[in-house]
Amino acid sequence: MLSETGTGALAPAATAVFTAVLTEGPLSRVSLANRLGLSSAAVTKAARPLIEAGYLQELAATERTGPGAGRPASPLAICPDREYFVGVKITADELIGVVCDLSADVRVAAHRPLADPGVDAVLTELGRLIDDLLDGPGDYRARTRRLGLAVSGDVDRGTGLVRYSPFLRWHDVPLRERAARITGLAVTVENDVKALTTAEHWFGEGVGAESFALITVGTGIGCGLVVNGRLVSGSHGVAGEIGHIGVDATGPDCHCGSRGCVEAIAGTDAIVSQARACTGKPGLTIDDAVALARGGDERVAAVFARGGTAIGTGIAAVANLVGPARIVVSGEGLAAYDLFETHIRTGFERQAFGAAVQCPLSIRPLPFEEWARGAAAVSIQSLVAP
Amino acid sequence: MLSETGTGALAPAATAVFTAVLTEGPLSRVSLANRLGLSSAAVTKAARPLIEAGYLQELAATERTGPGAGRPASPLAICPDREYFVGVKITADELIGVVCDLSADVRVAAHRPLADPGVDAVLTELGRLIDDLLDGPGDYRARTRRLGLAVSGDVDRGTGLVRYSPFLRWHDVPLRERAARITGLAVTVENDVKALTTAEHWFGEGVGAESFALITVGTGIGCGLVVNGRLVSGSHGVAGEIGHIGVDATGPDCHCGSRGCVEAIAGTDAIVSQARACTGKPGLTIDDAVALARGGDERVAAVFARGGTAIGTGIAAVANLVGPARIVVSGEGLAAYDLFETHIRTGFERQAFGAAVQCPLSIRPLPFEEWARGAAAVSIQSLVAP
Ligand SMILES: [Zn+2]
Ligand SMILES: [Zn+2]
Repeated sequence: MLSETGTGALAPAATAVFTAVLTEGPLSRVSLANRLGLSSAAVTKAARPLIEAGYLQELAATERTGPGAGRPASPLAICPDREYFVGVKITADELIGVVCDLSADVRVAAHRPLADPGVDAVLTELGRLIDDLLDGPGDYRARTRRLGLAVSGDVDRGTGLVRYSPFLRWHDVPLRERAARITGLAVTVENDVKALTTAEHWFGEGVGAESFALITVGTGIGCGLVVNGRLVSGSHGVAGEIGHIGVDATGPDCHCGSRGCVEAIAGTDAIVSQARACTGKPGLTIDDAVALARGGDERVAAVFARGGTAIGTGIAAVANLVGPARIVVSGEGLAAYDLFETHIRTGFERQAFGAAVQCPLSIRPLPFEEWARGAAAVSIQSLVAP
Repeated sequence: MLSETGTGALAPAATAVFTAVLTEGPLSRVSLANRLGLSSAAVTKAARPLIEAGYLQELAATERTGPGAGRPASPLAICPDREYFVGVKITADELIGVVCDLSADVRVAAHRPLADPGVDAVLTELGRLIDDLLDGPGDYRARTRRLGLAVSGDVDRGTGLVRYSPFLRWHDVPLRERAARITGLAVTVENDVKALTTAEHWFGEGVGAESFALITVGTGIGCGLVVNGRLVSGSHGVAGEIGHIGVDATGPDCHCGSRGCVEAIAGTDAIVSQARACTGKPGLTIDDAVALARGGDERVAAVFARGGTAIGTGIAAVANLVGPARIVVSGEGLAAYDLFETHIRTGFERQAFGAAVQCPLSIRPLPFEEWARGAAAVSIQSLVAP
């Protein structure tokens, strides 16, 4: 895909070198050769067009390769400012956008409220958001060619089609094509949880892991999975649906048609409706529920506890089945982190089988623009490893 | 590994060609080149040592490659009788052994009861079983160099160590080394469920699938998973533990320390103890339970129904999380196939999320020597793709 900049298509070895330096660099040529099973000459040959195109640089030789080694090592590193990438998360009520550099560091962020989640209205606002991001201070426009869009629901990254997004009520929207026409950028569209998982796998806690899971807790409860080094897509278009694992045979009904699903116990709507039921306050919101639980209301605290336990049981199913090297738990729902965390861990530890309990669990809130950064990460990936 | 026959180590391209012809052949060179992303010349070069060593053969050209194509295609095929492989499943009370050809077709089978599951006694009986298999009619001895052993529990295939096998009560047994000394064969040791999954992936319903799951139902309830084309091993040594997914928050206690696990509801011991409880017959066996349920005892039939539903719910968790192309359900427990099947399907269909319900489910009993064939398949794999 570097052909757009006049450097020719990337050979497989160049993609491997680019990916390794981007996600784990700086790395010496010797270290790259060992890690990728290539000769030093092949690494040098693969890196040359990337250096010429300004994506990679040779750092000054600061250390020798080892005792007695004659030539000092000049590690290869990314040039983060070579190119910028826009990432936008589309939700039903707002667009959240960032500009990232090649290292996926956020350089600027912005958002725009959406009055109407219809496709036309969203695309109009998307055009304005991108103008805001690229034409403000920083002069990003000149070095930006790519846009990543993250949408919840059933998204076909290959064709850029949003097959179905329940929150947006979109069916079969050719989003890549339409967004490209409006923005003039090369667009990649991905499911939001997969985008976030890609960001963690390439630039976060999942770097270097052969297997890795990201659990998102909020209105929906989702899961991105990397197994045997690659994102899991699901042969029938479904994967990572941890929210619809059945953990309680006599639990509450779920919108999916089953009952006792993790999401039916621990999703935001489920927390709210259980908190309303136990307090007898029909107008109670999620913020009210959090405030009551934090203020010592034991009935509402028990609702979060039950939710946390269900999430932990679902996470244990992931660990017992695929054994990820590590698991990150995040999402809007973890704004109530303090109410969930202990119970997620207890549920996980009780249900994890044998050594699966050793899997490290990072439980943390999700910063505002992280979903949009996930979209930018997917866009970076479409440059480096299309 | 072909070096043992004097043909030199296999290059990666040769391994790819050998694997493709073995699992999906006969295949023409053109078709191999397309499928493996190699040039026709590279395929020819890769195949040559395999043909010379007698593992592959060129079939007579029977069809043209297409309308107007000049040269007829001579597909490459396996020579099944080039080499034989012994596979043995070790259980606590018997050894089950087979001799397979290179296509994993069973040529002869035998078993020996074990009076004592101690390592020394098992190895002595193993030596006798292999003599029975190889020195009987068929003259397999001369063309047999490899042995696969399948053991339930925590097995490290890389080192050939059985870390822990609960049914055998083995801890840290260097089985590969000890079996090699007794038999004179090159030994591969693998977990029994993984071995069976390998057999299905290379020679059964999983051929060609990027992802695939095998569920085994019996005393234990296990799962072998292929995701992104490779067997899932689990970063912490645990994977496929579908038996310990928690599907019923208020269900019965499990030997793993949790409660409501699939195995605690549907494993053979769980079925027996629930059937004893509901009939008030403390001496009832699994065969008695099957007979009662088949004879119309509704209480005992309900125990199988509940078990089948729990298995189906666990299978749906596999489908929702990793989205296998297809799922096979088998194992000793499916001798009671008729009592389980409807409920497995109902539980699966209720809990599978969206399009995951499209995943084909093959539910079938497991023939006697299938576990041993799995061990032989692993041994074939150690020749072809070490
Ligand atoms: Zn559900
Ligand atoms: Zn258990």
